[in-house]
Amino acid sequence: MKVVIVGGVAGGATAAARIRRLNEQAEIVVFERSGYISYANCGLPYYIGDVITDRSDLTLQTPESFFSRFHVNMKVRHEVTAIHPEKKEVTVKNLETGEEFEESYDKLILSPGAKPTQPRLPGVGLDKLFTLRTVEDTFCIKDYINANHPKSAVLAGGGFIGLELAENLRELGMDVTIVQRPKQLMNPFDADMASFIHNEMRKHGVKLALGHTVEGFEERDGGVDVLLKDEQPLHADMVILAIGVSPETTLAKDAGLELGIKGSIVVNDRMETSISDIYAVGDAVQVKHFVTGQDALISLAGPANKQGRIAADNICGGDSHYTGSQGSSVIKVFDMTAATTGVNETNARKAGLDVDTVILSPMSHAGYYPGGKVMTMKVVFEKATYRLLGAQIVGYEGVDKRIDVLATAIRAGMKATELKDLDLAYAPPYSSAKDPVNMAGFMVENIANGVLKQWHLEDADRLPRDGSVTLLDTRTVEEFAHGHIDGFFNIPVDELRERLGELDKRKPVYVICQSGLRSYIACRILAGNGFDCYNFSGGFRFYDAVTNDRCLIESATACGMDRA
Amino acid sequence: MKVVIVGGVAGGATAAARIRRLNEQAEIVVFERSGYISYANCGLPYYIGDVITDRSDLTLQTPESFFSRFHVNMKVRHEVTAIHPEKKEVTVKNLETGEEFEESYDKLILSPGAKPTQPRLPGVGLDKLFTLRTVEDTFCIKDYINANHPKSAVLAGGGFIGLELAENLRELGMDVTIVQRPKQLMNPFDADMASFIHNEMRKHGVKLALGHTVEGFEERDGGVDVLLKDEQPLHADMVILAIGVSPETTLAKDAGLELGIKGSIVVNDRMETSISDIYAVGDAVQVKHFVTGQDALISLAGPANKQGRIAADNICGGDSHYTGSQGSSVIKVFDMTAATTGVNETNARKAGLDVDTVILSPMSHAGYYPGGKVMTMKVVFEKATYRLLGAQIVGYEGVDKRIDVLATAIRAGMKATELKDLDLAYAPPYSSAKDPVNMAGFMVENIANGVLKQWHLEDADRLPRDGSVTLLDTRTVEEFAHGHIDGFFNIPVDELRERLGELDKRKPVYVICQSGLRSYIACRILAGNGFDCYNFSGGFRFYDAVTNDRCLIESATACGMDRA
Repeated sequence: MKVVIVGGVAGGATAAARIRRLNEQAEIVVFERSGYISYANCGLPYYIGDVITDRSDLTLQTPESFFSRFHVNMKVRHEVTAIHPEKKEVTVKNLETGEEFEESYDKLILSPGAKPTQPRLPGVGLDKLFTLRTVEDTFCIKDYINANHPKSAVLAGGGFIGLELAENLRELGMDVTIVQRPKQLMNPFDADMASFIHNEMRKHGVKLALGHTVEGFEERDGGVDVLLKDEQPLHADMVILAIGVSPETTLAKDAGLELGIKGSIVVNDRMETSISDIYAVGDAVQVKHFVTGQDALISLAGPANKQGRIAADNICGGDSHYTGSQGSSVIKVFDMTAATTGVNETNARKAGLDVDTVILSPMSHAGYYPGGKVMTMKVVFEKATYRLLGAQIVGYEGVDKRIDVLATAIRAGMKATELKDLDLAYAPPYSSAKDPVNMAGFMVENIANGVLKQWHLEDADRLPRDGSVTLLDTRTVEEFAHGHIDGFFNIPVDELRERLGELDKRKPVYVICQSGLRSYIACRILAGNGFDCYNFSGGFRFYDAVTNDRCLIESATACGMDRA
Repeated sequence: MKVVIVGGVAGGATAAARIRRLNEQAEIVVFERSGYISYANCGLPYYIGDVITDRSDLTLQTPESFFSRFHVNMKVRHEVTAIHPEKKEVTVKNLETGEEFEESYDKLILSPGAKPTQPRLPGVGLDKLFTLRTVEDTFCIKDYINANHPKSAVLAGGGFIGLELAENLRELGMDVTIVQRPKQLMNPFDADMASFIHNEMRKHGVKLALGHTVEGFEERDGGVDVLLKDEQPLHADMVILAIGVSPETTLAKDAGLELGIKGSIVVNDRMETSISDIYAVGDAVQVKHFVTGQDALISLAGPANKQGRIAADNICGGDSHYTGSQGSSVIKVFDMTAATTGVNETNARKAGLDVDTVILSPMSHAGYYPGGKVMTMKVVFEKATYRLLGAQIVGYEGVDKRIDVLATAIRAGMKATELKDLDLAYAPPYSSAKDPVNMAGFMVENIANGVLKQWHLEDADRLPRDGSVTLLDTRTVEEFAHGHIDGFFNIPVDELRERLGELDKRKPVYVICQSGLRSYIACRILAGNGFDCYNFSGGFRFYDAVTNDRCLIESATACGMDRA
C-alpha cells in the first residue's frame, strides 16, 4: 500500500506516524509546501514575543528525525498542484528546483490546512504588511522586527492569532492597536464575556479600535496608514493581517471533491471525501458541530490531530469515527485566561435553540487560602431540556480546568442540572468544596425547581423606572455609594428582613448585588414573604465590566487611539 | 417547622443555610460542640505553617454573621448528648455553663463529623501528643509551637492530614518524620503511584518510617519517645497523631439508628436515616461508592456539602438524591500535586473487578512552551467492558485539571476508550493538542484493538532471564548506560529496523523505554515484522522511581531516620 499525504503539519504528520505504527510495510510519502513539518503552529506568536527563544523548538520533528523513527518520506518545499483521482496520481512541484512530477497513490490524505484570509483591499501587497501562519511567516516578522525595531503595530483582526500577537508585541514594548469591524474580539465568546477580554487588553496598553472598517493601506512616513471608512486612518510602523483563515482547498476543488462551507472539503465521519480512497483532515474539512449538529468550520489543532489518527486507522483497515468538534479553546490574554466550549448564547440562538444562561463569579480556590482569584463563568443550556450547550470562562488560575470539566460534561451529554453532582477533587490550593462547576449546577437546578428566577443584562435598560416594579440593590451602603444602576435603591441583604415594610408586595422585585449571591439570598427572603422576585445573573460586577467596555467602544476617543 | 441540626461545620452549616433559603418561616437551631461554626477544616494545617496567617480566615462565618444573614440560631459550645426519637427531642448540654436542656424538633439533621482515631496505646494522653481536627486543635498546636519552639515532630499516620502537616511543619524549619505501619503513604493511591509522593516528601527532607508499628509513647529528655515494635524508638519534641478518623456516631447509636461500616450512620439516597424525620450527612454517614456500588466511608468536604444541601431540599418538601461518592481528592505535596478519583487498582481488585491499567508520562503543556512539567498518570479500567473505574495523577501543573476531567468522565459513565474523543481546550500554555487525558484514551483504544499489548511492573522480576524471551530496552545508548533493568539489552528505537536480525522471531519480546512512547513504537515495528511484542506501561522512568522508593523503605537506615 502506498499512501500519499498532502501537508505535513498537525493532521498530516499525525496520520503519517499512525499509519506507520499500524502498517510497517506501507510506503508513506508526505508533501509539505513549506520548509518545515510537524511544527508548533500554536506556538508561533510566542516566538515573536521571545517567550519561545529557540527556533528549533518550533519544529517538533525534522524530515530526518521523522524518517529515522517512522520511515516516512517527508518531502518539504514540495507542493501538490493537482489530484488525478481517475489514475490515482498527484502532480507535485519541487519548489526548490521547479521540477514537476507525478506520484501515484493507493490512498491519499489531504491535510492542506487553512490560509490567512487576505482582504481584497488597496495596498494589501505592501512589504510592511504581514500575515502569520507558517514558520516562514514567523521568521519573516521576527527578522523584520529585529532589523527595523518598529515601535508600533496595527493588527487587523481580533481572533486567536490577533490577540496572541498583540500580547507578544506588547511584551516587546511596541505600541499595539487592534482594528476590526466587529465590536467584540474573540467571536467564540458572547459580547458580554468578551468585555472582560477587552478590559484586560486595555489594562495592558493594547488599543482597541472595534467597529471600524479597514478600507486599505498606504505607505507613509516610513510606516503604514491603515485607511478606515469615514474616519481618520490609523498609523503604525507595521501591520499584521489576522482577519481569519480560509480552508486551503483549491486542490480539492479542482479534483472535483464535494465542497462545503467556505469551500471546505466535505468528509464523512470516517474522514472520507466524496471520492473513494481520498481522505481529508484538519482545518480544510467541514465538521459536524457536536452541540448543534450543524455543519461547521472549526480550525483547531486538537480536532486536526484526532482526525489524522482516524483517517490513518481507516486506511489501515480499521473503523474509526470522528464524533464531531465542540470548539473547546483557551487563550492566554496577558495575565488572564479566557476559555470556551460548545456554543455560546449568540450562536445557540442563531442555531434556533431556546436557551437560558447562568453567570457566576466564583473563586478559583478556597477564599481562605492565599492567591485565589475571581473568575467569571457563563453556562448556556437549553431551556426545556436543561441540556448543557456551552460555557465560557474568563479569569486567572483554574479557568482552563473548569472549561475542560464542562467540555467533558457536554461531550457526555450531561444536563446542566447534573453539574451539581460532579464529584471533583478539592483541597484549599486547588478549589472549593463547592467547585465553581458545581455552583453553576446548583444555580441551574434552582431555576429548574422554580427556586431562582432571573433577569439578564439586556433587561437592565428595559426595566420600567415608573414605580411599577421595585429595583433593589442588596449590597452594603458603601458598595452602593461607590456605583450602582440608575433607578435602583439600596437595602443591604442583612437588613432586608427588618425593612420589608419599605417594599410593596404587589410589585415584582428585580434584585442585584455584587456577584449574584447576596441578591439570590435576598430573593429567597422576599419570595418567602410573598414577593415575586428576580435575581440579576452576574451581579453588579458583571454589569459594570460590560457597560464600561461598551461605553469605551462607542466613544472612540476614550479608547485613546493614536490618530494619523 | 422546627429543624435542629447537630454540627455546624460543612454539612450542617450548608443544610442550615439551604433550609432558610427554601423556607423563610422555619425555625432552625444548630448545636455545635466546638467554639466555631462553618470553619475551613481543610485549611487548618496551613494555619500551622503560616500559609494562612489570619485566625479569622479559618472561620468562614461567625454565629452572628450567620444569624444576621440566615436567621439561624447557631449555638456553639453546645453538645447534643442524646436523641429521643419517640418524643422528637434532643438533650443538649451547654458546655460553658454545664446546664442541660431538652430541645424539640420536627426534623433533625445529624452532621457530627468524624473524630481523629485515638490508638489504645500507652502514653496516648501525654501533653506533647496532639491531634488535628478542629479550630481549637489547630490553635493548640500553633500555640505550643510558638511557646516551645520544638525542633522536631513525629507524625503518626500518612494520610491527608499527616502529609499536609508534614509540609507545614517543614516550612517552619522543623525536622519531621512520618511513621506508620503501612508501607505506603496516602492509601487512596496504589503503592506504585505513592512512590512519587514518597520521593517528593524525602526530597523536601521529610523522613519516612514506613512499615513500622507504633506501640506507645514515653516522655524523655523534654520530648517524646515513639516506641516501635522490635525497633529502637523515634524521638521528637512533639508528636501529632494523624492515623485517620472514625465516624462520630455515639449519639446515633444510642438513639437506635441503623449503623454501618465502623459505626457510621446508614442513610438512603435522600439522606434519611432508619428513623423517620432524622437525616444525617457528612463524614459520619455511610455512602455508596459511585464506582464499585459498595458501601463506603468517604470523609471529604465536597460530599458533605452536597449531602447537606440534599437533606435540606428533602426536609423542605423537595426530592433530591445523593448519587454516591467517588472519592475525588487532591493534595499539595510541597511543589507537587497528587490527585485521585474513582477506585485505584488495588481496591478495584479487592472489589472483585477484573481490571487493566495504562500508565503514561505526558507533559502538562506543549513541550515547546516554557515551564511544562511531566506528570505520571495511571488510568484504571474494567478489562471486559473498558468502563473507566479510576485514575491517579502525580506531577505539578495541570494535575488537578486532568483528575477533574477524569472524575467527570467517570461520573458520566464513559468508557476509557472514549477519553480519546474528548474535545478539550488547547493552547500552548495550558495543554497539548493531544491532551494527557486523550493520550490515555488512545492507549486504551490501542489495547482494545489489539494494537498494544502490555507488561506491568509486577512482571519485571518474574520475566525469565534464561533466554526464552527477549528483553529489549529501546532508549539511546547513553540512557541505557545510565541505568537499566538487569537482563535487558539495548537497541535504540531508531536503529531497530536495521538491527532486526539480532532478534529471534520465535521469542516474545518485552520492550521498555524511558516513558513508554518509544517502546510502543518499537513494539509496532516488531509486530509489523512478525514478532509477539509487549510494551512496559510507564517506562523506565516509572520503574526506576518505584523500585528506588521500595529499596529505601526496606532499608530503614537509608531513610536517614534519627534514632533515639
